[in-house]
Amino acid sequence: MRRPADRGVSRRGFLMGGAAAGVGAVGGMSLSLLTDPHASGPAPADAPPPTPPTAATPEGRRRVAFHGRHQPGITTPPQAAITYVALDLDETTDRAALRQLLQLLSDDAERLMRGEPALADLEPELAAPEASLTVTFGFGPELVRRVAGDSAVPGWLRPLPRFAIDRLEPGWSGGDLLLQVGSDDSLTLAHAVRVLLRDSRAFARPRWTQHGFRRPPTTGMIGTRNHFGQVDGTSNPVPGTADFDAAVWTHDGPGWLADGTSLVLRRIRMDMDGWDKTDRHSREQSVGRSLATGAPLTGATEIDDPDLDAVGPTGFPVIHDLAHVRSARVNAAERRIFRRAYNYAEGPDSSSPGQLFASYQADVDRQFVPIQERLSAADLLNQWTTPVGSGVYALPGGCRPGSYVGEPLFATGV
Amino acid sequence: MRRPADRGVSRRGFLMGGAAAGVGAVGGMSLSLLTDPHASGPAPADAPPPTPPTAATPEGRRRVAFHGRHQPGITTPPQAAITYVALDLDETTDRAALRQLLQLLSDDAERLMRGEPALADLEPELAAPEASLTVTFGFGPELVRRVAGDSAVPGWLRPLPRFAIDRLEPGWSGGDLLLQVGSDDSLTLAHAVRVLLRDSRAFARPRWTQHGFRRPPTTGMIGTRNHFGQVDGTSNPVPGTADFDAAVWTHDGPGWLADGTSLVLRRIRMDMDGWDKTDRHSREQSVGRSLATGAPLTGATEIDDPDLDAVGPTGFPVIHDLAHVRSARVNAAERRIFRRAYNYAEGPDSSSPGQLFASYQADVDRQFVPIQERLSAADLLNQWTTPVGSGVYALPGGCRPGSYVGEPLFATGV
Ligand code: HEM
Ligand code: HEM
Repeated sequence: MRRPADRGVSRRGFLMGGAAAGVGAVGGMSLSLLTDPHASGPAPADAPPPTPPTAATPEGRRRVAFHGRHQPGITTPPQAAITYVALDLDETTDRAALRQLLQLLSDDAERLMRGEPALADLEPELAAPEASLTVTFGFGPELVRRVAGDSAVPGWLRPLPRFAIDRLEPGWSGGDLLLQVGSDDSLTLAHAVRVLLRDSRAFARPRWTQHGFRRPPTTGMIGTRNHFGQVDGTSNPVPGTADFDAAVWTHDGPGWLADGTSLVLRRIRMDMDGWDKTDRHSREQSVGRSLATGAPLTGATEIDDPDLDAVGPTGFPVIHDLAHVRSARVNAAERRIFRRAYNYAEGPDSSSPGQLFASYQADVDRQFVPIQERLSAADLLNQWTTPVGSGVYALPGGCRPGSYVGEPLFATGV
Repeated sequence: MRRPADRGVSRRGFLMGGAAAGVGAVGGMSLSLLTDPHASGPAPADAPPPTPPTAATPEGRRRVAFHGRHQPGITTPPQAAITYVALDLDETTDRAALRQLLQLLSDDAERLMRGEPALADLEPELAAPEASLTVTFGFGPELVRRVAGDSAVPGWLRPLPRFAIDRLEPGWSGGDLLLQVGSDDSLTLAHAVRVLLRDSRAFARPRWTQHGFRRPPTTGMIGTRNHFGQVDGTSNPVPGTADFDAAVWTHDGPGWLADGTSLVLRRIRMDMDGWDKTDRHSREQSVGRSLATGAPLTGATEIDDPDLDAVGPTGFPVIHDLAHVRSARVNAAERRIFRRAYNYAEGPDSSSPGQLFASYQADVDRQFVPIQERLSAADLLNQWTTPVGSGVYALPGGCRPGSYVGEPLFATGV
């Protein structure tokens, strides 16, 4: 049976609690920690630390490495705040200019993630503390095409098919270059975004910006609460495992995406007023898990695997036929997606917040699309959720010192 | 000479550093802590802890008391995130309805600040951790009038005079009832705001919402960085001192405002592009303090008092005639204001963030207006700052268990 649980919590997270748990969590630790906060010992053999890890600096600041096999910000334990910015390339930004842009932004990212000012940083005082800052780059099809021609664009790198539930609004979708910037410090984050945008100014202009936040994980819990009060993020591939690698990192090409992945970002409005009118039983049925604990309705704790075949005394399935976890469930490792969602609450109307749903997968068409199709057709949660934005991006692998994110693309095609 | 420094930092803040410092800081601690992190000992006799204090719960959560002589959220060390919401009262919301509303919201605030769900809370799972949640209520003139008639409205409770620098935009000013909600956890904060708005729904509708954030104080520093990179918040009355009491708490009436204060909230856009074009020397001249350390240009450390009479080798004043600290400076304790500013970075255009300037003072006309008039006439900082929103609110005193915020108003007039 597939191991049901999912994202570990580090010993340090347990000991510190609260905010510290958020920055201390590292994927892939022993599950025993989830139930016994006093347990310790090394991570299991099948769970090496993800790349790149979060570490404490000598001054006690939390730092994520920029260089590595994979880009940061994917297996990095989610920080408290995130900003996504999509840019549209100027007409005149050609292959040579794109190389320059990616070199510049990679250099910025590397310095900022060390808590150092970028080159010619105009507010150098805002660079520290890095507070687990990560910068992750994603490419839209147009960027890939300009660098390496049509043949370099993976088949799945295009707008998602239109789903029946979609109510996409102009201004939350698409983009040629995506910046994903996360940190536990919102000012550090705002400064990093500003530096990156300033250095992009000669090449591209912002298309949209989206801000999200996330509660640090609660001691002993894998998921974290969303606006509906649900525990969200429980069933997820575990970074550092072979199953995670099969699900997330590119393996069937294109070659320039080796050690990379894809990001699907959906802005999903959550109808709080409708949800508030719904009784607790129906709410729990809609997902198939308990609101209080996140346990499946067939289990007792969050890490229990849902039993989709269980029937109640009256002969009906305990987990509803149209429950979210039933429609979303995937068993084959290489067809699962890795979710890393944030809450948003922007805009003047606080009664309509939502989720910045983000999932990482090796192949959007093979992994994300079938799940979204099933959910679009049959998911009780659809009564209160509405996708209003949608984007698909290719995330290249990480880079070595002296190189930059996307370099392999420049050795491809044309 | 007036004691130059300002907002103390607790021993716990020093020991913990980073995020913990933000939640551990308590105003009014010994100044020696600012320079010697190993110093300890009790607070000086003139600095009792502010009311209500932040304390740790047995589970290690940070909690601020709702009940007390003063409302929470004023002397409370600023939390990482804040939301201000202004409401307009419905036509039909009369004196009796307002009493009901304030009872309801006070009850909500009290429960939520304890990390407990509000009555009939529809997302009870989101109430904990309280993460230093505070809810503070402010009244616009119309609310005061409906409860207790014209004579109960203090003279200063009206829109500020129009200043030459103002470029007020519709939608960021005024309001009959102000909610100020702060927490170190953005989801706790969003939930609290939603509960308060839901319970206001039969009485009032939101006019505007503004979100702000703040970096936790850096070890050994009083102020905290703003978007310009400046150390902001250094020179401020110290909670718990006689000077603070004279500056902040209502003393000349009206009686229903005893132990209360006023809030001036200004949304001030900061022109980052213009600032970035300015050399470092001119930037430092514009305020009169060093960007790196926050020290006055006539001193060495942040806590040094600016010497406004000092002249340089060429005979010019070291601190420019039009420097912000010169124009803003006030010596008489009862004419000072207590600033508690947040950064904002909302909207699609990240290149135009700003400051939610908030100041608390006993009398807006006596304290805030003269400073703003001087700054409007002569302040180098005006080159890059533009007020786009403005509001003035009366903040009643705190309440006892069984009572509610604003009760004394109902014993007044009409
Ligand atoms: C606002 C929208 C959404 C909300 C509130 C939501 C909420 C949840 C919750 C509470 C769970 C159960 C706990 C967990 O395992 O994380 C869950 C599971 C899951 N969701 Fe969603 N979800 C949303 C959108 C989506 C979308 C758009 C997809 C993909 C197209 C998706 C895919 C999944 C998957 C794959 C699981 C795990 C199923 C399992 O293996 O048990 N969700 N979601
Ligand atoms: C975005 C707008 C503003 C920025 C960036 C800003 C920045 C600063 C900075 C960096 C300082 C020096 C450090 C400190 O003592 O806090 C300062 C001091 C001060 N500011 Fe502002 N300020 C702004 C608006 C205002 C406004 C609107 C007022 C009141 C009308 C004001 C009143 C003061 C006062 C009273 C001081 C202390 C002066 C002293 O006693 O030395 N500021 N401000």
